[in-house]
Amino acid sequence: MSTYTYSAGPGMLPKEVMQEIQQHLLSFEHEGVSIIETSHRSESFQHVVDALEARLRRLMYIPESYALLWLQGGATLQFSMLPMNLRNRNRFAYIDTGIWSKKALEDARHFGEVNVIHPIIDETGGMSFEPSLAQDVDYLHVTLNNTIEGTRFTNIPDVDVPVIADASSNILAERIDVERFGMIYAGAQKNIGPAGLTVVIIRRDLIQSMELPSYLHYASHVDTLFNTPSTFSMYVAERVLKWVEDQGGVEAMERLNREKSERVYSFLEQSHVFTPLVSGERRSLTNIPFTTGDRDRDRNFQQFAREHGLLELGGHRSVGGLRASLYNAMPLEGAERLVDVMRAFEEETNVSHQNI
Amino acid sequence: MSTYTYSAGPGMLPKEVMQEIQQHLLSFEHEGVSIIETSHRSESFQHVVDALEARLRRLMYIPESYALLWLQGGATLQFSMLPMNLRNRNRFAYIDTGIWSKKALEDARHFGEVNVIHPIIDETGGMSFEPSLAQDVDYLHVTLNNTIEGTRFTNIPDVDVPVIADASSNILAERIDVERFGMIYAGAQKNIGPAGLTVVIIRRDLIQSMELPSYLHYASHVDTLFNTPSTFSMYVAERVLKWVEDQGGVEAMERLNREKSERVYSFLEQSHVFTPLVSGERRSLTNIPFTTGDRDRDRNFQQFAREHGLLELGGHRSVGGLRASLYNAMPLEGAERLVDVMRAFEEETNVSHQNI
Repeated sequence: MSTYTYSAGPGMLPKEVMQEIQQHLLSFEHEGVSIIETSHRSESFQHVVDALEARLRRLMYIPESYALLWLQGGATLQFSMLPMNLRNRNRFAYIDTGIWSKKALEDARHFGEVNVIHPIIDETGGMSFEPSLAQDVDYLHVTLNNTIEGTRFTNIPDVDVPVIADASSNILAERIDVERFGMIYAGAQKNIGPAGLTVVIIRRDLIQSMELPSYLHYASHVDTLFNTPSTFSMYVAERVLKWVEDQGGVEAMERLNREKSERVYSFLEQSHVFTPLVSGERRSLTNIPFTTGDRDRDRNFQQFAREHGLLELGGHRSVGGLRASLYNAMPLEGAERLVDVMRAFEEETNVSHQNI
Repeated sequence: MSTYTYSAGPGMLPKEVMQEIQQHLLSFEHEGVSIIETSHRSESFQHVVDALEARLRRLMYIPESYALLWLQGGATLQFSMLPMNLRNRNRFAYIDTGIWSKKALEDARHFGEVNVIHPIIDETGGMSFEPSLAQDVDYLHVTLNNTIEGTRFTNIPDVDVPVIADASSNILAERIDVERFGMIYAGAQKNIGPAGLTVVIIRRDLIQSMELPSYLHYASHVDTLFNTPSTFSMYVAERVLKWVEDQGGVEAMERLNREKSERVYSFLEQSHVFTPLVSGERRSLTNIPFTTGDRDRDRNFQQFAREHGLLELGGHRSVGGLRASLYNAMPLEGAERLVDVMRAFEEETNVSHQNI
């Protein structure tokens, strides 16, 4: 029986990549010396960095006018570094789409005034906002995919300020038109590689020379490894990005992710036991929250699923319920298995209802 | 032929630990699910965190009055977080012992006034300072081991302010009397585990409730994983600390490190080709800088050593020369091999001199 993990992050990585990492773990460039033991200033590690950058640029069509920064501290540290580095007027606009966007805007409040913009849900269930609300600010911040709520931002109108995107849970999982953004940032642990790595894709003209402590200053990290990065995470990320290229790129990932989420949603929509928590166009391709409507039954399902080899189906600790995260490395069979197991639980539940 | 890497960091990890990591890489708690794919909120990962903490407390005799924070961003991010979190009077004292202490004090200048204290070298070559210079400041900062210069701070007089130590290159490599310090911080990539992890050992009463953005506030990280940490690094660190305990603890590591450095230094002291760059009691146990006195010959030796399986013997890019880092995971044979290869180079050099 295969085991699948539907964790919202750290999430699954491609099986083939994990096997390759294991096979070469004790020998990177030299027999007996692991990538983990390799200096970040060595030529061989620089090859990893160069390949990683080249792959990300190809996969996301990132022009040279954007710099790639390989940082630590997760998206959470970017919640501070972003306003710290991009402030001029000390006013920012944040679209409030959920728990993570709230955390981002709370951190921004330490550096200036925050205009909180509420999203508009249109007739198709898509998510947009009123562009006139994003004026006279240093930037507009949007969380592209809301990992906890299972929603995605579908329609970003043109605005006159740089748009900054938290893409932690949808980077490489669906197409993102990089040139519409001033900066995109993402924690690695969902679609890129092991936790401990954060990528920042930033338009070079937005990087200011400022009075900031060294690590916290974007300028420190441009076109160089400023200090020891999360080397192993970068090494694995490079292998994961190669795998994404081999699969057909982000376009292929998006097709696969649409198919997986449609499989799960079409089951949920006709189920008598499970209910999806999001409807319409704003449904996330990668995070699907659902529930049986009963806390104990949700817990029973988690246990039932675990016995069938399906792990980490609990909702975020702040909201409860159930959630399936279907990132790039989750194969179609993982979505199918989930549907099979939900159906089996449904049947068992119906049987026990009849018994009462 | 065994290969040894004398990298100043990321450094060698114990061979047995690396083999164990490799063996279990694809199966952590469940067959087919890697530690890398395991949620940081799972029970099984919490066991790793608990074991890691318990081992570090045992190894360093850390009482409960100190909190352990598992952060990212390296010691370098602590250069900012430290003054940001511990400031009251906005005055700090920093002992200037080398390049890393300079970087630390430059970052502190963003948060207040810095008294730069110059170390005193005593008659044994030990390093101390004048305690009256560390008054009316929020804390005194000392770099316990200077990775680049190959020196260690030998004698810290009593002062009335909290003493904060950067122990990145000597943590677990020699005994540190934790209770003499307000806070000790260290990047993991020398003696603890893979890069991407930083440990902060801080006296709980020094943690202030302040107006700081979330990740940068020490209070956010006390007794909890505030956001996704570098999970794989923590997992490996726990295994490395188990290995240190199995070897006999920090006391045994210090004995081994003394023996290794004495082997190398006693060769260097009688060599006609190589010269050690540090003398006296302040010699680091873990980082030994040396030179042939000639840039080309230094480079030739590095090449010669590489051909004999000894890697990463170059000095820091800022100072040049040669450097051997002999962290905990470097076995005695690694020090012996280095001496053998230096001797062989010396003989070859002498022969070629005679040939001229």
